[in-house]
Amino acid sequence: MQIGMIGLGKMGLNLVKNMRDADIDVVAYDLFEQARTAAAQTGAKAVDTIDGLVEALSAPRIVWVMVPAGDPTDETINQLGDKLSAGDIVIDGGNSYFEDSIRHGENLAAKNIHFFDVGTSGGMAGARHDGNFMIGGDKDTFATIEPLFEAIAAQDGYLYTGPAGSGHYLKMVHNGIEYGMMQAIGEGFEVLAKSPFDYDNEGVAKVWSHGSVIRSWLMELAQSAFSADPNLDEIKGVMHSSGEGAWTVQEAIRLHVATPVISSSLMMRYRSEEDDSVAGKVVASLRNQFGGHAVDHK
Amino acid sequence: MQIGMIGLGKMGLNLVKNMRDADIDVVAYDLFEQARTAAAQTGAKAVDTIDGLVEALSAPRIVWVMVPAGDPTDETINQLGDKLSAGDIVIDGGNSYFEDSIRHGENLAAKNIHFFDVGTSGGMAGARHDGNFMIGGDKDTFATIEPLFEAIAAQDGYLYTGPAGSGHYLKMVHNGIEYGMMQAIGEGFEVLAKSPFDYDNEGVAKVWSHGSVIRSWLMELAQSAFSADPNLDEIKGVMHSSGEGAWTVQEAIRLHVATPVISSSLMMRYRSEEDDSVAGKVVASLRNQFGGHAVDHK
Repeated sequence: MQIGMIGLGKMGLNLVKNMRDADIDVVAYDLFEQARTAAAQTGAKAVDTIDGLVEALSAPRIVWVMVPAGDPTDETINQLGDKLSAGDIVIDGGNSYFEDSIRHGENLAAKNIHFFDVGTSGGMAGARHDGNFMIGGDKDTFATIEPLFEAIAAQDGYLYTGPAGSGHYLKMVHNGIEYGMMQAIGEGFEVLAKSPFDYDNEGVAKVWSHGSVIRSWLMELAQSAFSADPNLDEIKGVMHSSGEGAWTVQEAIRLHVATPVISSSLMMRYRSEEDDSVAGKVVASLRNQFGGHAVDHK
Repeated sequence: MQIGMIGLGKMGLNLVKNMRDADIDVVAYDLFEQARTAAAQTGAKAVDTIDGLVEALSAPRIVWVMVPAGDPTDETINQLGDKLSAGDIVIDGGNSYFEDSIRHGENLAAKNIHFFDVGTSGGMAGARHDGNFMIGGDKDTFATIEPLFEAIAAQDGYLYTGPAGSGHYLKMVHNGIEYGMMQAIGEGFEVLAKSPFDYDNEGVAKVWSHGSVIRSWLMELAQSAFSADPNLDEIKGVMHSSGEGAWTVQEAIRLHVATPVISSSLMMRYRSEEDDSVAGKVVASLRNQFGGHAVDHK
């Protein structure tokens, strides 16, 4: 099996290593020479243009795109649409919005190029070993690429999800659930921190990781974090986000699905990005005016 | 080692089986003869009164109370306070409110009886094998009962948490996190159900259980549920609750901890218990009055 990989960042390079472990031939391209060199060290053939990647692959070509969602993915897939041939296969393994993936599928289908949108979970560790993949696209053509996922996924760690768009849609909802689970865990540890007892966070996360109802990979990651920094004193509680949670809430709104937990998780991320809030100032000033309640001043 | 077990319901009986597997001598009491017979079949000595249980145990006695939280636990522990001797040990393995456990600890300490409040997680399966235990009480006396937990807990599945009350407090917060995680999972599957795609719920829960960021025991239980009933058509989405989630939210309010996810999870449980809502009627009638918006009629 031979795969072209475009994008050799923290996910793409680990996927290349994973594929190389499975003796898959990889032709690897990235804008940055350092990334290409790292890929070459795995035994991949590094190329410095997309044209070079297309030339180095045997038809029917399979090209995995692992670049940031949005414009970089759009531009890469548009280029591939011009450079590839009928019967070739494009896989978008990034976190693209599902409607972009539906559009990519339609545009490529017009040129008889097959498109698969692959939601990739498991983090960098999963990209490297035993990954998790949610795969949308043409069902018959899926048989051609299924051996790739057998090679790089965890046991039972890939799923054909339906037509193009369905893979990234499922990954979007996966991330929405992830937001809620993470916020629930975070809230629990904040109650413990302010509780009348003196809990050892690492010990708590460890015991909860061994036989409890809430055992989960996220709890194991919490244990790891507390092990390195017992009260996380070294970091700020600013929770950035990269789109999938917001898309899940937008989709819930479109579908009229009540999702207070996923929505609140997203809103708490936004709140965490502000040192102070306009909403807070407004509420404090209203309380002051109608009830004479004290306000805090700068 | 010898343990007296009071309460042979779905948790207590499984704990007795777990202890018997570890060759722990068990003296077992329950109000119901059928439960006592089931315990006797494990090789436990069944007794039909608490007096009989106290008599059958060698001093210093260790008595595990596994009856419903609230009055049944209060009454049982009060009786034990009268019947046990100085140096004996009482373990409350139920889901008692932590302030009750602080009180139980104080009352028994006045009689030189040691008290441990043990939050028990892992469900019935965990009671039976590889359980999870969060243990509050006197630290020095804990050494006496630690071999019990080594025998019945999962590897690394027990934790000494601090003074009496801290075990049930930690279990309370564990359950609050559980509420949030479960609601997040539930909301995600509802988005999928109403999505433009046709997902196989069991397949989704299965792939998410193998290598994804949200892999967890709860996701494995979701897979099991969808395996038996692909869209859960046979059950209603009424989510009962038994106290710990509400206590977590009350505690968060007392401590001024922002817990929107755990709180929303609890509120969605309450909402699910109503076919219709007074709040909904009020909002619909207000929209109708100020904006002429249509209301749904019975």
